[in-house]
Amino acid sequence: MIYLDNAATTLRKPREVIDAVVSAMQSMGNASRGAHDEALHASRIIYDTRCALAELFGCSRPDHVVFTCNSTEALNIAIQGAIRTGAHVISTDLEHNSVLRPLYRLQEERGVLLDFVPADRSGKLDYDDFERLIRPDTGAIVCTHVSNLTGEIVDIGRIGKLAREKGILFIVDASQSAGSIPIDMEKMGIDILCFTGHKGLMGPQGTGGMCVREGVEIHPLKEGGSGVQSYRHRQPEEYPTRLEAGTLNAHGLAGLNAAVEYIRRTGLEKIGEKERSLARRFYEGVADLDSVKVYGDFSTQYRGPVVALNIRDYDSSEVSDALSQDYGIATRPGAHCAPRMHEALGTTGQGAVRFSFSWFNTEEETDTAVRAVRELADE
Amino acid sequence: MIYLDNAATTLRKPREVIDAVVSAMQSMGNASRGAHDEALHASRIIYDTRCALAELFGCSRPDHVVFTCNSTEALNIAIQGAIRTGAHVISTDLEHNSVLRPLYRLQEERGVLLDFVPADRSGKLDYDDFERLIRPDTGAIVCTHVSNLTGEIVDIGRIGKLAREKGILFIVDASQSAGSIPIDMEKMGIDILCFTGHKGLMGPQGTGGMCVREGVEIHPLKEGGSGVQSYRHRQPEEYPTRLEAGTLNAHGLAGLNAAVEYIRRTGLEKIGEKERSLARRFYEGVADLDSVKVYGDFSTQYRGPVVALNIRDYDSSEVSDALSQDYGIATRPGAHCAPRMHEALGTTGQGAVRFSFSWFNTEEETDTAVRAVRELADE
Repeated sequence: MIYLDNAATTLRKPREVIDAVVSAMQSMGNASRGAHDEALHASRIIYDTRCALAELFGCSRPDHVVFTCNSTEALNIAIQGAIRTGAHVISTDLEHNSVLRPLYRLQEERGVLLDFVPADRSGKLDYDDFERLIRPDTGAIVCTHVSNLTGEIVDIGRIGKLAREKGILFIVDASQSAGSIPIDMEKMGIDILCFTGHKGLMGPQGTGGMCVREGVEIHPLKEGGSGVQSYRHRQPEEYPTRLEAGTLNAHGLAGLNAAVEYIRRTGLEKIGEKERSLARRFYEGVADLDSVKVYGDFSTQYRGPVVALNIRDYDSSEVSDALSQDYGIATRPGAHCAPRMHEALGTTGQGAVRFSFSWFNTEEETDTAVRAVRELADE
Repeated sequence: MIYLDNAATTLRKPREVIDAVVSAMQSMGNASRGAHDEALHASRIIYDTRCALAELFGCSRPDHVVFTCNSTEALNIAIQGAIRTGAHVISTDLEHNSVLRPLYRLQEERGVLLDFVPADRSGKLDYDDFERLIRPDTGAIVCTHVSNLTGEIVDIGRIGKLAREKGILFIVDASQSAGSIPIDMEKMGIDILCFTGHKGLMGPQGTGGMCVREGVEIHPLKEGGSGVQSYRHRQPEEYPTRLEAGTLNAHGLAGLNAAVEYIRRTGLEKIGEKERSLARRFYEGVADLDSVKVYGDFSTQYRGPVVALNIRDYDSSEVSDALSQDYGIATRPGAHCAPRMHEALGTTGQGAVRFSFSWFNTEEETDTAVRAVRELADE
C-alpha cells in the first residue's frame, strides 16, 4: 500500500512515537494534583510537551499551550470563546469546516457578521482584500495557514501584521502546516494558533491544541475537574487549566512529545522540503496530461505537500477507488470539508482527488502514483 | 509500587489494550469519508467500539454512542446541550466538578435553577428528596452513579423510574461505575449516560463518550469537519456525527475496544466483585483503629471499590505523601473535585486520603496498604 492521504492523518509515525505511547500506558497515573510518582510522571511529560510545542511555534509561555483532542476543538474554543457577540469577522474561502461551521454558528446564534476573502479559480487570495474588508467593528480574522485542498500557503505574517496594527484578534488554523512549515506566533502576529497532533506533527490521533498569546481572553467551552481550586464554582482562570477540563490524553501527549522531539532532531525545514519536493515531483509527472486538471497555482514553488486533481469528468470518488483497488494507492476524494474552496475552484459536483505526502513517502511511491494517474488518464 | 489510585485512572491496562493501540498507530487512516483500506479500517474499529459499548450499557442504538475525549466533555455536551434556558435542575451533593461546574455555568449564564439532594454525614442520599424537589418546571436530573469519594452506589434505577414517570431528562455520570458495575440504560431509565474510557473500562486516556437514548435532542458543543454533508453550514443532525466534530481518537478507541472485549470475556461482575472485595478487605483492616476515620456507609456491602479516610487530624496530603515516599503506595489526597461531598462529610479543611482498587490489584498489595495505615496511625 502506498499511503498518500497524509493531509487527513499521517499513517506512518516515527517508532519513538509508538514507543512513547506504550511506555505511557504502562507507567502513567492521572496528571492532576497527586503526590505519587505516577501522577507526577504524567504531569511532567505533559509539561515537557507544552514546552516543546511553545518552542516549535514561538509561543512565549508554555503554560499558554492548551491541549485539546484535535484542531477542531481548538478552533471551536477559540472562535466561540474569543469572538464577541455581534462582532464583524473576516475569514477566507480556503477554510475547512472546522473554521466555517463555528463561524456560521456565531452568525446564526450570536449575530456575528461574516465576510470571506474570496479565492480565485486557482485558489489564491488577494491580500488587499483583508484591508478592504476591515471595518471599525471587525473583531477577528480567522484564517488557515495552508489550504487542505490546493496546498496554497497563506502569507500569515502579512495578515498578522495588519491585524496587529488594527488591533484585531488573529486566529490561525495550522492543521495543515504544523510540523512541515515554520511558524512563529510572535513574528507572525498570531494571537491564537490552533493545531492538530496527528497530521504533520506525526503524533497520535486524539491530540492537538492551541497556543494563546499572553493577555488574550478566551471563555472556556467546557468546565469540570481541574485538580486545583476545587471549591470554586467555575473553572479556574489561569491557563492552561482555564481551557482544559477533565483528564487529558496524557498517553497520546507522550507520543506527541516524542514526535515533536523527532521533528526537532530531524529538522522541520528538512522534513518540509522533502514533502514539498515529493509533491512537486508528482505534479510534474502529471501536469502535462490534457485529461488531468490540477488545482492550485503551481507557479509558486513554496506550497503545502498536496496535489488535488481530477481526470476528465470522472467522479473523484471513482478515481480514488480505482487508485485504491487497482494500484494500492490511498488518496482522498470528494469535498475535503472545504466547501467554499470547491465553489471557488468550480468542483462542487466532481470533488477532487487529493494526493498528500509525508516525510515517510519515497520517490518510488511518488513515481508509482504518477504512473497510476497516467494510466487512468489514458483509459 | 502499589498503585491504589484507580479511581483517578487505572494505571494497569490489559496487554491487549496496549497491543490494539500499537496496531492502530501502525495501520489506521482517518476514519471519515475515504475509500481506501486504511480509512475503512479505522471506521470499522470505531463502529465496533460503538457496538461493544452499546451492548455493555444497554443502549439500543450503536449510532447513538458518541465519542468524546473524556467524561467531562460528555457531561458538558449533555448539560450544556440538552438542558433548556431557565429550567429547574436537580442534582446531588455527591457530584464531581465535571457535573457541578457545567451546572453552575448554566445557573449563571442561562438562568437555570439548581437544587441539590443533600448527602448526610455518611455521604448517603434520601431518595424521597428527589420526589420532594421535583417541580412542574424541572427539566433534568443529573446524578453520578458512584461517588468518587465514598464509593456510595446511587440507586440509579429508582431515580430513573421517577424521572421517566415525570417526563424529566435523566443524565447519569458513570465515570466511577463503567466497567465495574452493571449499567442498563433502558432498564434504569437513563436518557444520557456519560462515561470515561481510562478508569474502570481500563482503556487509554483520551477516550470516553456518551450513550444517548433515541429521541433525545442535544445541541452540539462543537462543530466542524464531519466527512459527510460538507456543504451544509452546520453540523449534520444525525447521531453520532451530530456531536462528533473533527478527527476522533481512533488510536485510543482501538484500545478501548480491546478493553471492553477484555471485560466482556472476563466478566464485568467478576471484575467488580474482586475490586469490591479488595476494598472491603482494606476497610476491615483499618476500621477498628480509633485514630482512623473512614468516610461513607460501610454497612452497605454493595459499594464502589473506594475507601476514603483520614488519620487523626493529619493533613491528607501529608499522609498521602508518606504513603508514597515511605511505603511506595500511590493514593490521592485532597478534595477529589468533589466539593459538596467534602462539605457534607465535614472534611473541607483536611481533605481525605482515597484508596481505590482495580482488577489488577492483589490481596497482598491490599494487606501492605493496611499495614502502612496502621503504622502511620500508631505514630
